[in-house]
Amino acid sequence: MSDLINKKIILKSRPVGEPKESDFALVETPTPEPGEGEILSRTIYLSLDPYMRGRISEGESYAASVELGSVIVGGTVSQVIKSNHPQFQVGDFVLSNNGWQTYAVSKGETLRKLDPTQAPLSYSLGVLGMPGLTAYAALLDIGQPKEGETVVVSAASGAVGAVVGQIAKIKGAARVVGIVGSDDKRDYIVKELGFDVGINRKTQELNSALKEAAPNGIDVYYDNTAGVILEAVLQQINLGARIPLVGLISEYNATSTPSGPNLMPLLIKRALIKGFLVGDYQHRFNDFLGDVSGWLQSGKLKYKEDVVVGLENAPDAFIGLLRGDNFGKLIIKVNEDPTTA
Amino acid sequence: MSDLINKKIILKSRPVGEPKESDFALVETPTPEPGEGEILSRTIYLSLDPYMRGRISEGESYAASVELGSVIVGGTVSQVIKSNHPQFQVGDFVLSNNGWQTYAVSKGETLRKLDPTQAPLSYSLGVLGMPGLTAYAALLDIGQPKEGETVVVSAASGAVGAVVGQIAKIKGAARVVGIVGSDDKRDYIVKELGFDVGINRKTQELNSALKEAAPNGIDVYYDNTAGVILEAVLQQINLGARIPLVGLISEYNATSTPSGPNLMPLLIKRALIKGFLVGDYQHRFNDFLGDVSGWLQSGKLKYKEDVVVGLENAPDAFIGLLRGDNFGKLIIKVNEDPTTA
Repeated sequence: MSDLINKKIILKSRPVGEPKESDFALVETPTPEPGEGEILSRTIYLSLDPYMRGRISEGESYAASVELGSVIVGGTVSQVIKSNHPQFQVGDFVLSNNGWQTYAVSKGETLRKLDPTQAPLSYSLGVLGMPGLTAYAALLDIGQPKEGETVVVSAASGAVGAVVGQIAKIKGAARVVGIVGSDDKRDYIVKELGFDVGINRKTQELNSALKEAAPNGIDVYYDNTAGVILEAVLQQINLGARIPLVGLISEYNATSTPSGPNLMPLLIKRALIKGFLVGDYQHRFNDFLGDVSGWLQSGKLKYKEDVVVGLENAPDAFIGLLRGDNFGKLIIKVNEDPTTA
Repeated sequence: MSDLINKKIILKSRPVGEPKESDFALVETPTPEPGEGEILSRTIYLSLDPYMRGRISEGESYAASVELGSVIVGGTVSQVIKSNHPQFQVGDFVLSNNGWQTYAVSKGETLRKLDPTQAPLSYSLGVLGMPGLTAYAALLDIGQPKEGETVVVSAASGAVGAVVGQIAKIKGAARVVGIVGSDDKRDYIVKELGFDVGINRKTQELNSALKEAAPNGIDVYYDNTAGVILEAVLQQINLGARIPLVGLISEYNATSTPSGPNLMPLLIKRALIKGFLVGDYQHRFNDFLGDVSGWLQSGKLKYKEDVVVGLENAPDAFIGLLRGDNFGKLIIKVNEDPTTA
């Protein structure tokens, strides 16, 4: 053991709803010595990010939960103070995952060396790190903003949102709208970051504010929050809109399952939901007709009709259709079919 | 005017919730004469489809509402009885949009001639028509089932769902699960159509039934219903799952806005939501770092940090982060940064 004291913050109890101070405990332990291939580093910067709320809960997320009594996980910038790894020297700065503690031993393979002359060290936890990549890749690869389009982002002054809005402008979006939680933040994203409009969700009515802010509708919504903001944005989305679902901050502290579809699994499983209307797929009609006719003729595909005779029975049949009373494709026989007479 | 009597069903009042017989009225009018380039046809088959519920409501959908007093819209197969159009002869069978009436005048351009020797006439309103194309294109182009995968479809014995499940099997899905509303329908999709499993949503608990039916999770969910079925399916979806959102039958009769995100706009606008996790985008890291570093250096992109000093303040800062109290990227300064001393 080293004679350095390691301060760490451990998870004392799993928070129910909003975390409380008493869910955490500060403890002091001796600092361990690095083994072969390992280094000991002193934490300089610790990044706090909303995803950590998921890690201190039980239940499925995209990574294992922090166990009770364990130090809480987190990305850090630290400085090497002892090294048993040939690629790291004492004094090197590294991007690390020390978590919520002042010192940690790590395997060299999990570290990335940082050059403090290139950018402030802490930037690699933000704009030049995981939050920056989150902004960049989800906006450009899923959101795919095109010149002239309208882009909306929630949590817009945050680590991710602020970068999203600015990249959208750089890429030629005609209108970038940010949703924030205070007037200061609204001023900041508009005056400092160049967003076209800011909306304070705490003082403005979202539906009307979005309608005014995005008069041509919304083409890309970069969603950090889900919940009521997603609901309001959906009212203004344009044909073929793209919505990267990146965070559900509004649900992280929820104690009951929100009614309506809970979209958390979509995020965890990087799944896709896409609205479909058959009118967009006329170009597939010939492929379809060839395949399905063939399958019908070969008996690979079977088909059942539920034929109701008489136009006067259409209302009743339709009411039943919405209840699921029909069995097979519902057809009203309005007049005789001379081909089956 | 012709001396033929045209029977039609008109929209008498806009249904609130489940439609009632009294929302419809059967009226008789003289049948109009076709003008230049028009034909008069006798309706043989009228297709009833769930989308019609949206057409008889007010409010935005993907097509205009049926006006009060007007005949209700609908796809039909009809036979030409008078023609002022060179391409159509009396006796021809045509795919038409006569709506809920026994006769209609149409412009020739809106009609497609049908050959009754190829398939029963009514099939062009079902398996070989719009419902069939809906099944085919949304499953293959959005759902993209791969060999060995598990595909789930709701409203599985209906005009669309029955075709979806069979195409999924034809395309090599290892397991096709259908959700239906009766034991008869469940037997039908399994014994007649070759689905691997059927679930009766009225008698079986959906979550456990789905877990058992899809032990390897769900890769494609063809969603005709949304609502509680979507909620349950989301609990079992696999990484990278695809969900064509084709219908929201569960919401068509809803009188209040469902709480939680109402997904109707996704469908109407053919929009896409896709879950995102930054871990999948490491291949974009170099592009990202090059672009964002450049933008930072040129001043195109600005960045703000909210630095809290002292590890002991991390819990409080984290609680505030979830409330949105931070302003800029939240960083805990755990130890001194020698590069800024």
